[in-house]
Amino acid sequence: MTSVNRLSRLDPEIAARLKRDASGLFPAVAQQYDTGEVLMLAWMDDEALHRTLTTGLCTYWSRSRQEYWVKGATSGHEQRVKSVALDCDGDTVLVRVDQVGGACHTGDRTCFDATVLKPAAPPSAASPPPAGSPPAAAAGS
Amino acid sequence: MTSVNRLSRLDPEIAARLKRDASGLFPAVAQQYDTGEVLMLAWMDDEALHRTLTTGLCTYWSRSRQEYWVKGATSGHEQRVKSVALDCDGDTVLVRVDQVGGACHTGDRTCFDATVLKPAAPPSAASPPPAGSPPAAAAGS
Repeated sequence: MTSVNRLSRLDPEIAARLKRDASGLFPAVAQQYDTGEVLMLAWMDDEALHRTLTTGLCTYWSRSRQEYWVKGATSGHEQRVKSVALDCDGDTVLVRVDQVGGACHTGDRTCFDATVLKPAAPPSAASPPPAGSPPAAAAGS
Repeated sequence: MTSVNRLSRLDPEIAARLKRDASGLFPAVAQQYDTGEVLMLAWMDDEALHRTLTTGLCTYWSRSRQEYWVKGATSGHEQRVKSVALDCDGDTVLVRVDQVGGACHTGDRTCFDATVLKPAAPPSAASPPPAGSPPAAAAGS
């Protein structure tokens, strides 16, 4: 496994808890702090996390451009950081933000708006099935 | 880049839209469908996504055990699938679920409960600062 060691000013105590992939990156989930919308997933390295924690604006590492990327720096659709949490394994960050405008480069509010693979059941699905319908399968494994 | 080609029954039209890492995997974010809580992030391959879409229970690929993993199969803390969406780049899945019990192996409700790197400001932070306080910095860049 190769290791990427970009310079970072991240607090060493936080850095010691992180688990990174072979490129020195970990996924960061951005969530709208008040509505709970999952806005997008992008990637951070230690320095991107440091900048996110200290500047108040979400900063990611662009895998395609190989450079730091302050979300909204060109579009104005910035993510103002409200809180940051690390998961139990130390390999994923959850950033709660106040998203200005749309999070998605397509203009959508979130990056998950356009392609639904399995739609949520409509509220009417909770109605009793018509007579003669087979019983619903139990959801347990 | 190596490619992993596990057998999959995933709909070819969905498979054609997916972008996977060198191990054939992509991140999946699990979110409680009604409260909006981000519960955890785990990894899927095509077949895990197929099982998640068709069985009604979230199924992941365990990178440590190198096997499929039905969330809650041993703990009972299963994730009943409500809807599934793919992001704009085709490289991340968002699964809205009804989480039974805690999502985290530690017993916490979510995997992001234990380690807060930057806490949310208390509600009182919205109150006017005491006289003599410096003005708050603007959050914009």
